Amino acid sequence: MNTNYLADYHQFSRGGRIETSLPVSFFLKYSSSIFDCRNKSLASIPGSGERKVIIIDQAVQEIYGEMISSYFDDNKLDVVQLRILCTEEEKNIHTVEKILRFFEKNTVLRRETIICIGGGILLDIAGYACSIYRRGIPYVKVPTTLLSIVDASVGSKVGINHFGRRNRLGAYYPPIGTLIDKNFIKTEKEQNIVNGLGEIFKLSLIKSRELFDLLQNNSSLLLREKFQYGAVPVRVINLAISEMVSELEPNLWEKDLKRCVDFGHTFSPVPEMLYSQSLLHGEAVALDCLFSSCIAFNRSIFCNDTLHRIFSVARSLKLKTFHESFADTNLLIKSLEDATTHRNGNQNLPLPSTIGDHIFVNDITESDIVNAQTTMVKYHESE
Amino acid sequence: MNTNYLADYHQFSRGGRIETSLPVSFFLKYSSSIFDCRNKSLASIPGSGERKVIIIDQAVQEIYGEMISSYFDDNKLDVVQLRILCTEEEKNIHTVEKILRFFEKNTVLRRETIICIGGGILLDIAGYACSIYRRGIPYVKVPTTLLSIVDASVGSKVGINHFGRRNRLGAYYPPIGTLIDKNFIKTEKEQNIVNGLGEIFKLSLIKSRELFDLLQNNSSLLLREKFQYGAVPVRVINLAISEMVSELEPNLWEKDLKRCVDFGHTFSPVPEMLYSQSLLHGEAVALDCLFSSCIAFNRSIFCNDTLHRIFSVARSLKLKTFHESFADTNLLIKSLEDATTHRNGNQNLPLPSTIGDHIFVNDITESDIVNAQTTMVKYHESE
Repeated sequence: MNTNYLADYHQFSRGGRIETSLPVSFFLKYSSSIFDCRNKSLASIPGSGERKVIIIDQAVQEIYGEMISSYFDDNKLDVVQLRILCTEEEKNIHTVEKILRFFEKNTVLRRETIICIGGGILLDIAGYACSIYRRGIPYVKVPTTLLSIVDASVGSKVGINHFGRRNRLGAYYPPIGTLIDKNFIKTEKEQNIVNGLGEIFKLSLIKSRELFDLLQNNSSLLLREKFQYGAVPVRVINLAISEMVSELEPNLWEKDLKRCVDFGHTFSPVPEMLYSQSLLHGEAVALDCLFSSCIAFNRSIFCNDTLHRIFSVARSLKLKTFHESFADTNLLIKSLEDATTHRNGNQNLPLPSTIGDHIFVNDITESDIVNAQTTMVKYHESE
Repeated sequence: MNTNYLADYHQFSRGGRIETSLPVSFFLKYSSSIFDCRNKSLASIPGSGERKVIIIDQAVQEIYGEMISSYFDDNKLDVVQLRILCTEEEKNIHTVEKILRFFEKNTVLRRETIICIGGGILLDIAGYACSIYRRGIPYVKVPTTLLSIVDASVGSKVGINHFGRRNRLGAYYPPIGTLIDKNFIKTEKEQNIVNGLGEIFKLSLIKSRELFDLLQNNSSLLLREKFQYGAVPVRVINLAISEMVSELEPNLWEKDLKRCVDFGHTFSPVPEMLYSQSLLHGEAVALDCLFSSCIAFNRSIFCNDTLHRIFSVARSLKLKTFHESFADTNLLIKSLEDATTHRNGNQNLPLPSTIGDHIFVNDITESDIVNAQTTMVKYHESE
């Protein structure tokens, strides 16, 4: 027997490891008036040829449809476009199938970049369709709401609801880039701006006192001027995005399940699913932040003045400071249990330790929840 | 205006990049008799607790079901198990849905490792279900056929057929590891061993003269003894896997679309889909290898003796050296066109340059195809 073969026997029993890594690099480009034909940001997106493939939120298309047509006409580019009705109910496998059929019908190539224009729901659904078609095709995000500008813009999470569960199916699938144009915010209803402010409020509370101070001092300006004028909204968006990037960049695939950006996403998911008609995502998140702050206060992590200040800023941003779902102990326990399962059996609950910083706890009991409910009602009614 | 804010304005117009990387490391472990209760390979798979979650090919379960039950009983481990009928027709979204319901019903945690036991079809479907559930849960591959031992075992590609297209939906989703036990091969029908030899034949022809020589000198032994005894089958499997690893490790996500392991996968996919009843994957791949070799021969890349030798080794491995689908020019053109679309508009056709090495070409015309058809018939009939 050849000695080479003998060596093989040993190798066969030993095995080995395959070691490699996937480098990810995506651009984050701020641009103004992206449908102005002189702005080449969209026209020059890499990985797409003379033809541009667009998936767009129906509501956005209704407002910007003509501008978009003119933009691509003026830039001598063909466009194929699919409009999607974007509600939480439509965030399902049937809508994904519709997008996949659109890809198939238009013979989308494996490296052809899809331009996804819309809010968080559109970006989640379209990004998921891109992640599975031909084992993944490239896409660019163009967020069109304040919420998606500060949230979905920098993440890699895509997905759809399934089995009555939020984002039960999905992937970590980074785009090749994100184009951020805050002009979109000016056509948003106030309620949707409040929705975005909910996520910014969340980030400020656990990550940035400067951002919290900015919200406190400029709440009515931000709501009235819809982030259009002056330096304050630029700073707010910049801070929110850069705080988000600092959390996501080292943990884009959530290998670490202790994530401070999960703040606001522990007690809120079940209420949000049940009251999807009356509760926006940012509102639900903010309610969870207030509720978690009540837990922290009851554990003497910070003082009465701080809790008052937190409720008062939420109120000035027109966020809800109470909702009937947060009076239902069983609902909150269920939501905590689901989140714990999702965090692989650990609560990993982020709590503010002070304004702008956080700790994680793993020992929340039913009595913490009941006591926090009482505190929440009290501070809700106190002003 | 605060100078900090002014600086922000510039930053806002400049944007930035998010740069990170996903490290991937998975084990490749050779083990013998993995259902022997003294073998702890399965029992000690990381990321699974007292309960093991298994997805298994129905045909494998029929043979090894009792051994598997005893194995986990003896190791004092609970098991939940889903059996899947694995045919090319079942490799669809409905089977995926069945697996997802099984996960949901058993409250599979986010970091709970799924043990997937079966051939290439099982590993493709189950791996895909794992890739999308909760945005991806870990899984281990246990390939049970010669074909999957040398092919699916080391790759990261998972997927299902859709829109009548092979693997139209899927992902690059590496397992946490692969357990290789060549004992499984002994219960395979000869036809399925031939199927696996098709992929080994492919690899040898473009990557390893040593492997090609081994096949040539041991074809009847390998077929007769089903890879069970002596050093030769160990060396064959080792060489096939290590050649595969050397190609996949630096290109696991196929960022580079010039892939020599695509050899045999250009002209065969459409014939294979159309004749799924009479043509196994490895057979179709080998036919493509022979056809591509005819193209190379017609271009004077190698001589008559080499082409004879290639056909003769295929024949000795009981691989088909002709099939009616390869007489249909339009079918071959269609398959080349599809492959070209999949390679983002480039043919990137691998051709053997000699036995054990390859080149890529991008200028295949209809007359190359027609001439190769004539050559193929001639060499098919010549012995």
